[in-house]
Amino acid sequence: MEIHSDVQGMRLALELAARGMFTTTPNPRVGCVIVKDDRLIGAGYTQPAGQAHAEVQAMNDAVAKGFDVAGATAYVTLEPCSHFGRTPPCADALIRSRVARVVVAIADPNPLVAGQGIAKLEAAGIQVTRGVLEDEAREMNIGFFSRMQRSRPWVRMKTAASLDGMTALHNGESQWITGDEARADGHRWRARACAVLTGIGTVIEDDPQLTVRAIDTPRQPRRIVIDSRLQISPHARVLEGGGTWIVAAQSQPEKEEMLHDAGHEVILLPNADGKVELPALMQELGKRQINEVHVEAGFKLNGSLIREGCVDELLVYLAPSLLGDAQRMFNLPALESLEQKKSLAFHDVKQIGADLRILARFT
Amino acid sequence: MEIHSDVQGMRLALELAARGMFTTTPNPRVGCVIVKDDRLIGAGYTQPAGQAHAEVQAMNDAVAKGFDVAGATAYVTLEPCSHFGRTPPCADALIRSRVARVVVAIADPNPLVAGQGIAKLEAAGIQVTRGVLEDEAREMNIGFFSRMQRSRPWVRMKTAASLDGMTALHNGESQWITGDEARADGHRWRARACAVLTGIGTVIEDDPQLTVRAIDTPRQPRRIVIDSRLQISPHARVLEGGGTWIVAAQSQPEKEEMLHDAGHEVILLPNADGKVELPALMQELGKRQINEVHVEAGFKLNGSLIREGCVDELLVYLAPSLLGDAQRMFNLPALESLEQKKSLAFHDVKQIGADLRILARFT
Repeated sequence: MEIHSDVQGMRLALELAARGMFTTTPNPRVGCVIVKDDRLIGAGYTQPAGQAHAEVQAMNDAVAKGFDVAGATAYVTLEPCSHFGRTPPCADALIRSRVARVVVAIADPNPLVAGQGIAKLEAAGIQVTRGVLEDEAREMNIGFFSRMQRSRPWVRMKTAASLDGMTALHNGESQWITGDEARADGHRWRARACAVLTGIGTVIEDDPQLTVRAIDTPRQPRRIVIDSRLQISPHARVLEGGGTWIVAAQSQPEKEEMLHDAGHEVILLPNADGKVELPALMQELGKRQINEVHVEAGFKLNGSLIREGCVDELLVYLAPSLLGDAQRMFNLPALESLEQKKSLAFHDVKQIGADLRILARFT
Repeated sequence: MEIHSDVQGMRLALELAARGMFTTTPNPRVGCVIVKDDRLIGAGYTQPAGQAHAEVQAMNDAVAKGFDVAGATAYVTLEPCSHFGRTPPCADALIRSRVARVVVAIADPNPLVAGQGIAKLEAAGIQVTRGVLEDEAREMNIGFFSRMQRSRPWVRMKTAASLDGMTALHNGESQWITGDEARADGHRWRARACAVLTGIGTVIEDDPQLTVRAIDTPRQPRRIVIDSRLQISPHARVLEGGGTWIVAAQSQPEKEEMLHDAGHEVILLPNADGKVELPALMQELGKRQINEVHVEAGFKLNGSLIREGCVDELLVYLAPSLLGDAQRMFNLPALESLEQKKSLAFHDVKQIGADLRILARFT
């Protein structure tokens, strides 16, 4: 394959990065291609945490194919790391390989890197170009950027509603408002998240597993249940397989021990009202290296999370139907003036099967 | 300009037809181009009713430019008429001009034409091709097709709502949920309609003019107000300029006379409940040569029109905002089962300024 421009090289590196969409957490998804004399000689992307980073993968790939990397150009979707983490610094590896030029889409927001990787390369006489497809590269790791820059994950709230904005009938019926394609697409968003979050109301009413099933993934996201009064049943399906985090506001030592023995963890984060302190939870999730949170909750918790400023974007599947007098999407209070409305911006709109998928970000 | 394919010729004819979007009512919007030796020699589109049709316009255009139409191909977006209406039959004019071939996008649904135009051309030895860009041609005149085939207009209901499906605050505030571009776009849809319809509730609350102002148009659509009890104030702005149709369920001779004297018409169409019989109104509008109706009404009338099966498509402008507990779009009752939902299909989705425009059709 021939590569004739920086944009073309970086586009390919981004496509490779996307292969790590479901697996790299807590690391960012990074792709790298090595180009020499306009020819693609090596390619790689971040493997699950603790294994080789994209740059090393790509260089190994080139060498395995019999190419000499010296004098080549490396396209990397994120600034090469300069520090010893679970693997040695990629910047050092690039320098040792004697590549002539490194094209970087965006600087690493990790304060342990933050320009030092680029500085290290330049100090070693390597030409560095940055900013190629920068926006796409940031989007690819929107959760990692959020955690590094804001100490909290990127929170995406998924909901499915009719065109008139209703998510369920008053009698609770809500299954299959949207179609199979939207359901599979929703599972794809679950799969890329580090954690899927819901509330005890949904657990009691719908008893969801909250796992990724409609598509293949080698990794299941962490499941998190907001359960202020620790009401969760030990038989709830969200507990199947262990590893669920239950976030409560009240300690109940016996129940906590039971959950702990079953492989779960109870996190106590009470606020003054005896409920879970949601913004504090987001900080806590940041500390726990959660990059992207995928919320699938009900009317009440959805409303609380939005009201408390914990949501970054809405992922709304709109079905081509009208439900009339039914359950709204979010429990938000009546406003006194339109100026009090919550403002967003449409980021992406796509038809998925018969439904419409809208990604909108709070501004 | 050179034309090398039937699709290219018809695409150009459709673009010409679109120039009559605001003016041809009650006639269909038709475009015509004449091509000879791969060269565009004439073009025309339907002028306001009573004036020359597209085919004659295009032939006159060619002749005026010094071309001989004999042996040429005519591309027409709708089957040429075969009957004497306000103008002589276009099929006859094409035959007289000795064109060799006529490409027709779609047969005329008018029972007075319905294939006879094509038959007439073929009987005269002209080669006829049909079905080129047929779907686009039907869309262009969706209201005319509706009136001819169903004896009632195509009814488009416009609404603007927040992403969570709310159209106004409980205190009534609703102005500027969507932005300027959406407002101008909405006026473009008004301008193409034969009539703009609203309810007395909206007239009393918002006192709208219901005219096209945000864009230029040489023709203002007819205004129609559903006003069962003839509550309308003589000072309502929707009456400014005259010509408004007020549809009532109760006769009030004095008020009717007053409205009549001011240049309006009162149409009495009561149903058994003392309200306006909406399906009968649609039949009446069909008789009155209304092709497309643009509804801009409130929660209640919107709901009634949908419940009574009088709406063909929804034109929804979604703003990137959340209003929470507020006024829903349509007064539709709570369902007992999701199977009772009203089903639609998304037909077109486009971002207009910061808002989203969704065109969805009932199925």
